[in-house]
Amino acid sequence: MTALRRVALWTDGTVRAVAPDEPVVTAFDQGLGRGDGVFESVLVTGGRTPHLDAHLTRLRRSAELLELTHPGEEAVRTLVAAASADWPADVDGACRVFLTRGLGAGEPPTLLALLAAVPAETLRQRETGIAVVTLSLGVPADFRATAPWLLGGAKTLSYAVNMAAQRHAHAAGADDVVFTSLEGRLFEGPTSTVVWAADGRLHTPPVETGILAGTTQARLFARAEADGWPTAVTAGTVADLHEADAVWLLSGIRGAARVTRLDGVQRDDAGLTARVAELLAR
Amino acid sequence: MTALRRVALWTDGTVRAVAPDEPVVTAFDQGLGRGDGVFESVLVTGGRTPHLDAHLTRLRRSAELLELTHPGEEAVRTLVAAASADWPADVDGACRVFLTRGLGAGEPPTLLALLAAVPAETLRQRETGIAVVTLSLGVPADFRATAPWLLGGAKTLSYAVNMAAQRHAHAAGADDVVFTSLEGRLFEGPTSTVVWAADGRLHTPPVETGILAGTTQARLFARAEADGWPTAVTAGTVADLHEADAVWLLSGIRGAARVTRLDGVQRDDAGLTARVAELLAR
Repeated sequence: MTALRRVALWTDGTVRAVAPDEPVVTAFDQGLGRGDGVFESVLVTGGRTPHLDAHLTRLRRSAELLELTHPGEEAVRTLVAAASADWPADVDGACRVFLTRGLGAGEPPTLLALLAAVPAETLRQRETGIAVVTLSLGVPADFRATAPWLLGGAKTLSYAVNMAAQRHAHAAGADDVVFTSLEGRLFEGPTSTVVWAADGRLHTPPVETGILAGTTQARLFARAEADGWPTAVTAGTVADLHEADAVWLLSGIRGAARVTRLDGVQRDDAGLTARVAELLAR
Repeated sequence: MTALRRVALWTDGTVRAVAPDEPVVTAFDQGLGRGDGVFESVLVTGGRTPHLDAHLTRLRRSAELLELTHPGEEAVRTLVAAASADWPADVDGACRVFLTRGLGAGEPPTLLALLAAVPAETLRQRETGIAVVTLSLGVPADFRATAPWLLGGAKTLSYAVNMAAQRHAHAAGADDVVFTSLEGRLFEGPTSTVVWAADGRLHTPPVETGILAGTTQARLFARAEADGWPTAVTAGTVADLHEADAVWLLSGIRGAARVTRLDGVQRDDAGLTARVAELLAR
């Protein structure tokens, strides 16, 4: 276990630090028993959380989709500040914010933040890239847009399938997954957004498919456009990834991890990862 | 909040009672942060848990599907016994057993049991029946059988979609949901098994669709067969439910709740609910 960990807990408008080994939720919390809550993973780097605003916006959107009571953005900011207060500037950390339905039945939500060093394996993948397999969710690409009970677009605590998919990838000798639709259209990774370079542009799939709005993808695309690199929202397929100049999985913690192998086929990045990394680091 | 509640926690082979308001899992537990765990809901009635064995079997199966470390059946029995030790014989209770991946990375699993009185609304539905809407999961009926990463057949803690579907039903003036496949084939309820009577037989959908193996459905079917009421596993549709003599949602806590309205259409039970209830009560 990592020694360097922090936890902060919000209760009735007050934030307090908690020892990482101290239990924080009761057996009756709906976040534990039903995965009924939402979360964000916020990068802590240089002792700061430079991209916090984008996560706060998405957390609020997820909470709306689950009809959760949101304690307000200031509460979340105070919480993240408390968790990361004396975090060492030379250690990249992943600060996860959980908002659950609490005990339900109109009781207050549970809100907490936990912070740990980014795992060495994640840092490795950031540098040397990842082998990826595609796995289908079995749902048509346009289905979730008209089925709100499937919670498309919400980053929920119900990640058992996301974790099972990553175990499936590891058993197949890969590092990560790209989920696809029933027809083979691209969705997203279990904890990341798919981006590819083709025809002189950067592409990512439409959020109307029910995928999450990627905070790192949005930052990359805004900076690429400003830098003269056009971007597009494209309903791509696995074939498009094989034919692309480069493919990345983007996430707040890992950054842009270039895909070096896709469904067993080695692939290049046309030297574009350096430019992507430079844009993200600005 | 219900005053009558119990919690018992398993740690390193020892079971101890915990105050219901006392936190039991840390912020880093994968059950909380990823819904990465499994559960069972066991009926406590007359101070006993008469159907515990079936739940223990399914819990083990769910744990296998998620590749969770299982602390052994005896640990779960001891835990449930501790939680229900002095439970009043005249109050029906729902005892939920949670098994999570704990901190992950080879650390021990988290195992706990919580017990609360069956809610009054559930008891009401048991007596007077339920209005149900059908909602599609968007997945073909035969898809999950060949996609193990979707965790078909596992009762996981990742129930955010199940809870969202029930909220959707409530907003539509209904009590509960029957999930269907992309083609309109029957799956299950968010917390129950679908059973219908037609052609002199009891029917339920095949588990090969990725639905849970219903413990109450299995008990009903075994007793019905012994009683001369034939049963069948049938790939039914919503139309089959409309045409059926009777439709029930079965679960361990609620028992057989007869469907009195389906997608806005009133329906009868041909007087069969009494026989189903009698078989389940034997």
